[in-house]
Amino acid sequence: MKGIILVMDGMGDRPLKELNGQTPLQAAKTPNTDQMAKEGINGIMDSIAPGIIPGSDTAHLAILGYDPYVVYTGRGPFEAYGVGVEVIPGDIAFRCNFSTEDEEGIVTDRRAGRVRDTADLIDELNKMVLEDHPDVKIIFKGSTGHRAVLVLRGEGLSDKVSDADPKVEGKPPKTVVALDGSPEAEKTADILNQIVKKSYEMIKDHPINVNRAENGEPAANVIIPRGAGAVPTVELLNDKYEVNSACIAETGLIVGICRFAGMDIIDMEGVTGGIDTNLGAFRDTILDQVKNSDHDLLLVNIKGADETGHDGQMKEKLEFIEEVDKIVMSELKDLEDVYLIITADHSTPISVKNHSGDPVPMLIKGPEVRVDDIEKFSEVDAVKGGLGRIRGSDVMNILMNLMNYAHKFGA
Amino acid sequence: MKGIILVMDGMGDRPLKELNGQTPLQAAKTPNTDQMAKEGINGIMDSIAPGIIPGSDTAHLAILGYDPYVVYTGRGPFEAYGVGVEVIPGDIAFRCNFSTEDEEGIVTDRRAGRVRDTADLIDELNKMVLEDHPDVKIIFKGSTGHRAVLVLRGEGLSDKVSDADPKVEGKPPKTVVALDGSPEAEKTADILNQIVKKSYEMIKDHPINVNRAENGEPAANVIIPRGAGAVPTVELLNDKYEVNSACIAETGLIVGICRFAGMDIIDMEGVTGGIDTNLGAFRDTILDQVKNSDHDLLLVNIKGADETGHDGQMKEKLEFIEEVDKIVMSELKDLEDVYLIITADHSTPISVKNHSGDPVPMLIKGPEVRVDDIEKFSEVDAVKGGLGRIRGSDVMNILMNLMNYAHKFGA
Repeated sequence: MKGIILVMDGMGDRPLKELNGQTPLQAAKTPNTDQMAKEGINGIMDSIAPGIIPGSDTAHLAILGYDPYVVYTGRGPFEAYGVGVEVIPGDIAFRCNFSTEDEEGIVTDRRAGRVRDTADLIDELNKMVLEDHPDVKIIFKGSTGHRAVLVLRGEGLSDKVSDADPKVEGKPPKTVVALDGSPEAEKTADILNQIVKKSYEMIKDHPINVNRAENGEPAANVIIPRGAGAVPTVELLNDKYEVNSACIAETGLIVGICRFAGMDIIDMEGVTGGIDTNLGAFRDTILDQVKNSDHDLLLVNIKGADETGHDGQMKEKLEFIEEVDKIVMSELKDLEDVYLIITADHSTPISVKNHSGDPVPMLIKGPEVRVDDIEKFSEVDAVKGGLGRIRGSDVMNILMNLMNYAHKFGA
Repeated sequence: MKGIILVMDGMGDRPLKELNGQTPLQAAKTPNTDQMAKEGINGIMDSIAPGIIPGSDTAHLAILGYDPYVVYTGRGPFEAYGVGVEVIPGDIAFRCNFSTEDEEGIVTDRRAGRVRDTADLIDELNKMVLEDHPDVKIIFKGSTGHRAVLVLRGEGLSDKVSDADPKVEGKPPKTVVALDGSPEAEKTADILNQIVKKSYEMIKDHPINVNRAENGEPAANVIIPRGAGAVPTVELLNDKYEVNSACIAETGLIVGICRFAGMDIIDMEGVTGGIDTNLGAFRDTILDQVKNSDHDLLLVNIKGADETGHDGQMKEKLEFIEEVDKIVMSELKDLEDVYLIITADHSTPISVKNHSGDPVPMLIKGPEVRVDDIEKFSEVDAVKGGLGRIRGSDVMNILMNLMNYAHKFGA
């Protein structure tokens, strides 16, 4: 038996006047998904709790059975997982920007002219050793564009430190301070302040920046950390649920969450994270994994609908949902010996242009579900289904139960 | 955007044979509320948890987002808030009765002949200083009738003390004892025993009591505390949810909860807490607050239905619900740019003549709710609505999400 959790990122929405009071999902023509709703059991889900607005990261943590209020210590660790740093419990991780600092130490461009290709700068920064803290290992890794990750590894560190990011241009980097007054936080704050200073010394005259100056581009001459988080100790998904799990996703954030959970990551060609993504690659990868791999649990995240929500693109959201139905769902609907969960991680309503705390619809299709009388997959229809209103933290337990993987609690 | 939580106190009920198996709310003609149910999203709510019987106080705490199991330390503090004592965290508060004690120290009337107008007695008692505990500030405040509030302020006090109230007449006040054996509780118990004794000495010959004796009325000559509670430290509602909140209520208990939460209290003329209350004042006050105030969150509590439940008055309960529909709901149903939640804090079934743990119906009407197909507001109809079954602790989160006031947890 195999299980698939297919997350349409940000698919949930609110009723729209332009759609006669329907949501984009309600208004979309999704015959394949609707057939699965009809053959399955339906409900609504609050990824975290009713009304709580989830991030994609905290929502996926919850859906994978982790309590985000416990394990989500900050953005840093999940960014680090996302870009593939091999972090270990106890590491303190940060998000960073390459920024532009002038000779007076003022940040003139927080994104260093949206610099790309920072690999050589990262290599240089990875030589950094602080004289005052020679025992602390300093690890940089580049992410997309001007973004990077910083990981500190060593004894006596803390994530209770403030951000160096001044948030606005025209100011110097903020002095990092200990938030709880502990010696560990004091030490970590001191390290960060030295790293900001030293990064400027190390890369201000780097050939890349000489070259950028010649082209009239802002230098990427300082690194500014924020979003401290301590890497938590958790049980890996495969151990916790006795599965062999894999992740099929197109964004670093979701890949990071899945790496955190110890899942295998399946690469795909041509996926973009937008509505122009390669849905055929999703379809083929899922089918290949179901038919030809030893993985028995797949987490799939398709990002496009969330992007359209953030951009307020109603028509594009509706059409992308229809495309997924046509290209992906059409091939999943007849899979046998598979429990398929179709849901979203959160709503990203067109009217809000951001995530919201409205619950999302969920359907489960598979050999032994208690089929209800819902005939259409939507936020409004699913409410009357056999699942009722559940939470993200219920999803893995429900799936493991249906797959007969779960163990009895008691006698 | 504004939000209103309108609580019909004790409105929920159980099916009654006399109403052909309907509840009073089901049987009542409520066209205005029904229209809102039709245009809104419906569900049922357990203020605390399924089957748990809430007080009006614990239910309102939960609905306002406070965990009653944490903040509800006893009746005392909330009575103190209710009568307007400016308590501060760490204070120990008690409910008190003025009672009648005879010369042998026996309580002959626990309510001192339901004495009224105790202001002069309170003034006298507020002069009290205990020689053994000169550092402890002793604050009395009168409530309705024979009721009063006592607040102890000082170092090293505890609410882990028993009641002085003997509960029955013909016995002396109980000796207060420490419940946990701590020095703080021992000290507090000693203070209370001295207060009971000293109150008798201070007011037994007070002119009010001389006068009562002349009229053949029982003296209000001793004060008997019970219901110890330590005033908790909590985040104010306005800070927690970034709102500017106000309370429109007619009973001290609810006003006390709202003062505890730091809400503004709006006064009304002619409200009684019974079915003879001034519903026009409620209507006008709500409309005035919506249209002319800076308050963006209103908690409204209309008490009458609860009174009829306690008294087992089926017809009166049904008719009061109809009156509220006619006078109040008729004017609320067309408000724009408002999210209006209509619900109850608990059921007070006619058959039980007390609160019960049966869930209550809830509707939410507002610009972007996912409208369901419920057409009538009742305990039975609401079950099939789009909200499903939620808890009191979800209410503020759901409302803040709809109003787009909430913040994302994660990325």
